[in-house]
Amino acid sequence: MTSTSNEPLYIKVNAEDNVAIIVNAGGLPAGTVFPCGLTLIEHVPQGHKVALKDLAQNEEIIRYGEVIGYAIQSIPKGSWIEESLVVMPTAPELDDLLLGNKVPPVLPPLEGYTFEGFRNENGTVATKNLLGISTSVQCVVGVLDYAVKKIKEELLPLYPNVDDVVALKHNYGCGVAINAPEAVVPIRTLRNLAIHPNFGGEVLIVGLGCEKLLPEQVIPVPDKANILSLQDHQGFINMVQAIVKMAGERLKRLNERKRVTCPVSDLVVGLQCGGSDAFSGVTANPAVGYAADLLVRAGATAMFSEVTEVRDAIHLLTPRVVNEEVGKALIREMKYYDRYLDLGKVDRSSNTAPGNKKGGLANIVEKALGSIAKSGSSPIAEVLSPGERPTEKGLIYAATPASDFICGTLQLASGIHVQVFTTGRGTPYGLAMAPVIKVSTRTALTEHWHDLIDVNAGTIATGEATIEEVGWEIFRLILDVASGRKKPWADQWGLHNDLCLFNPAPVT
Amino acid sequence: MTSTSNEPLYIKVNAEDNVAIIVNAGGLPAGTVFPCGLTLIEHVPQGHKVALKDLAQNEEIIRYGEVIGYAIQSIPKGSWIEESLVVMPTAPELDDLLLGNKVPPVLPPLEGYTFEGFRNENGTVATKNLLGISTSVQCVVGVLDYAVKKIKEELLPLYPNVDDVVALKHNYGCGVAINAPEAVVPIRTLRNLAIHPNFGGEVLIVGLGCEKLLPEQVIPVPDKANILSLQDHQGFINMVQAIVKMAGERLKRLNERKRVTCPVSDLVVGLQCGGSDAFSGVTANPAVGYAADLLVRAGATAMFSEVTEVRDAIHLLTPRVVNEEVGKALIREMKYYDRYLDLGKVDRSSNTAPGNKKGGLANIVEKALGSIAKSGSSPIAEVLSPGERPTEKGLIYAATPASDFICGTLQLASGIHVQVFTTGRGTPYGLAMAPVIKVSTRTALTEHWHDLIDVNAGTIATGEATIEEVGWEIFRLILDVASGRKKPWADQWGLHNDLCLFNPAPVT
Ligand SMILES: [Ca+2]
Ligand SMILES: [Ca+2]
Ligand SMILES: [Ca+2]
Ligand SMILES: [Ca+2]
Ligand SMILES: [Ca+2]
Repeated sequence: MTSTSNEPLYIKVNAEDNVAIIVNAGGLPAGTVFPCGLTLIEHVPQGHKVALKDLAQNEEIIRYGEVIGYAIQSIPKGSWIEESLVVMPTAPELDDLLLGNKVPPVLPPLEGYTFEGFRNENGTVATKNLLGISTSVQCVVGVLDYAVKKIKEELLPLYPNVDDVVALKHNYGCGVAINAPEAVVPIRTLRNLAIHPNFGGEVLIVGLGCEKLLPEQVIPVPDKANILSLQDHQGFINMVQAIVKMAGERLKRLNERKRVTCPVSDLVVGLQCGGSDAFSGVTANPAVGYAADLLVRAGATAMFSEVTEVRDAIHLLTPRVVNEEVGKALIREMKYYDRYLDLGKVDRSSNTAPGNKKGGLANIVEKALGSIAKSGSSPIAEVLSPGERPTEKGLIYAATPASDFICGTLQLASGIHVQVFTTGRGTPYGLAMAPVIKVSTRTALTEHWHDLIDVNAGTIATGEATIEEVGWEIFRLILDVASGRKKPWADQWGLHNDLCLFNPAPVT
Repeated sequence: MTSTSNEPLYIKVNAEDNVAIIVNAGGLPAGTVFPCGLTLIEHVPQGHKVALKDLAQNEEIIRYGEVIGYAIQSIPKGSWIEESLVVMPTAPELDDLLLGNKVPPVLPPLEGYTFEGFRNENGTVATKNLLGISTSVQCVVGVLDYAVKKIKEELLPLYPNVDDVVALKHNYGCGVAINAPEAVVPIRTLRNLAIHPNFGGEVLIVGLGCEKLLPEQVIPVPDKANILSLQDHQGFINMVQAIVKMAGERLKRLNERKRVTCPVSDLVVGLQCGGSDAFSGVTANPAVGYAADLLVRAGATAMFSEVTEVRDAIHLLTPRVVNEEVGKALIREMKYYDRYLDLGKVDRSSNTAPGNKKGGLANIVEKALGSIAKSGSSPIAEVLSPGERPTEKGLIYAATPASDFICGTLQLASGIHVQVFTTGRGTPYGLAMAPVIKVSTRTALTEHWHDLIDVNAGTIATGEATIEEVGWEIFRLILDVASGRKKPWADQWGLHNDLCLFNPAPVT
């Protein structure tokens, strides 16, 4: 598939595929003849599928060696398989799946790689040295914003070893059904966010005083010394002074911290995709999957997520779980989300966005088959419910919605130090609590967004680089970013999206 | 009930009540003898209920002339009726209610009051002159924050007649089930927020380019000239420049606007309570209700909300609807929310927060009876589903969750120019799009939060002021604030809570 010229190029992923996607920017016109003899009978846009053979009505359409749909009508060889021609298959049945029947062999250990991190007292490490200020309720946000501005302007410059001050703002805490069975999810998330390793063991929580979610519920040890309730303070000026004072004490301690050499096995790396296209599954996601394998080989934790984007590929994941218990947990999370969507009268097909389709993805099945490439080829060592902390190392499936903000928030709660984010359409996404490395699926996007994309995986489509080469590039960049030696673009510009909790329970 | 000294004081709201609440700060000790002869047999905290007679087990506990619960055991006269002694009644049956059977007489018109507002081209008025920048998806927030900071620092000082730049940030737009039946609610809310009268008819929306919610769906006329999609721009610097340029054009036009004298009938005033206590229903809320009556008499619109806080008092509201259609709409909104909560395995009793209970409210029934006092005594002219715009003037019920942030966001979508917010426990709540006037239920809170509370209604409890007097004070302050003559504390400090959409549909 090597090509650096303008010759027509398609990518067929699997030998069994009867469709391929067009690589050339701008797509290719009718009449285009490929080296293999295939002739396009109509224009096919970039990333979109061409029929490699005549397809009969109802015939299986195969990509990644999997059925991504059925032909709604007969489709001649060389046609553009536009999404409306693809009838979506039903999702895999969850009760018949084999669990752990094809556990991949453990890959050889990878030694000799380290990074420079801040060692926390509890043994974890930090990739940034942040003052985190948690909140128990949105009511405090106006006061907190005022105080944080003051802290950043007046105090932060005095403590050069501290990278930033991060306020953990959210919509939970009051006006919510806190005793609903599902409330466990947002509460667990907030509790785990408050003790993120990048906060260096310092805890500070600002509450109101009458809210449903008690500040004590959001921190591991309910020590009053770490809690500030606005209702205890006489007026606004006093509240602000109190927050600034507590911040100052913590900044002083955080400023004493220095980076030390840490083994890669201390790292927890989150993997996500957003604004995906048809290249995601052949360029950026496989490269990230290769980097994930390198992380796992080096003893680290790699975490993939996004339930609606693994649901249709679940039969390819359940064979990879290390034991039946992990397999059952994986099925449990799929069933949970099936039911959650069903209550809202939708299904997993609600996932795909107009941009995904414009980028060549016919449906959620095709999207999911590309999405799971991020998981590489390691055994799946553990499955987490939304916002839980891992207890194992290796490849972890952390169940989250696919929403970039909710997935990001939940992966942070699960303790990620860095997130690797692949995008085909382009998003300026970033997180305040951990650096985000953005990997483009296409060279055109990398060029268009030269000051937002960190890694170009588009070179894989044109044959200029291999999956392995880009995978190594991502792996090395993870270590550089985790060490503070390099800043991804989102951090250079300070582009940080708001936290977004997953709250499946009602508001009141 | 007059008292300026330290003599013991309770408030009995209705002649039929068999309980009263203690007024004195700090509560009153056992042995306290009231002028009427009642003797406390134990300490009763401020705002908490004392039994005015011996109550038998299962006997009705009556406040506001309504049953707020049943005695779990026999309770001697002079006892503290702590919340655990009160068995909560079931909510009123919704199918048996009489609709519009006791429509209150229309109050005499109130003439001679005006305010100074900015007149919009479509006939509406603005109480602030704001540049609003809407968004179709959270992905753009990092870039938008960067651009807004630049606009505020570099452009806003050049346009002194413009009050502020407000970015409408939210968690909707992608990663959500946009075709779910319930998606109508957040989409309608965003569309109505984008055309809020305080934005002076200027529309500017920043989108990404691949999101599910199209920017065109969020604005009334899908004019490309008002839409900026980040994916159309070559890199971050260009995006920021493009946003700043579009903002500059609009700031220039907004700066031409001048305040003119407007009739009070142009005003839409939202009413809300948050952090309520047992005084809410006898001081701040009745005073707000009196102000609401004055607004309605002057031809304006007064809007009350918070479904879970009217649900248990619904039998007192359905008689007041102007016709059967409005009554049916009111029932429809109650049923909608009953079902919504039921799906989450909770009911309206999830509403009450620990602070409410500490403040003397035994349950949601007692809270609701106090909450509806904000509606005054006018006929109910219209009922809105969440985020809808009113088509009538007068007293309007806009169905919203009680959550301060969601209610605020939805009332803004419904077009409020000012919000009056009562609080017993205290919250620094504020909105960027419209001024919020905060009314305290207790003098102690007003003194404690001297630089956050705008109006003290606590004087009503001690007899230093009447409901009418404080009602007039609120009414006059609404006109001053709407005219820009006075700034409530939240605006003086710039305390603005984030928007929070009501999205009853799933995320994906
Ligand atoms: Ca994704
Ligand atoms: Ca996505
Ligand atoms: Ca995603
Ligand atoms: Ca309320
Ligand atoms: Ca409220």
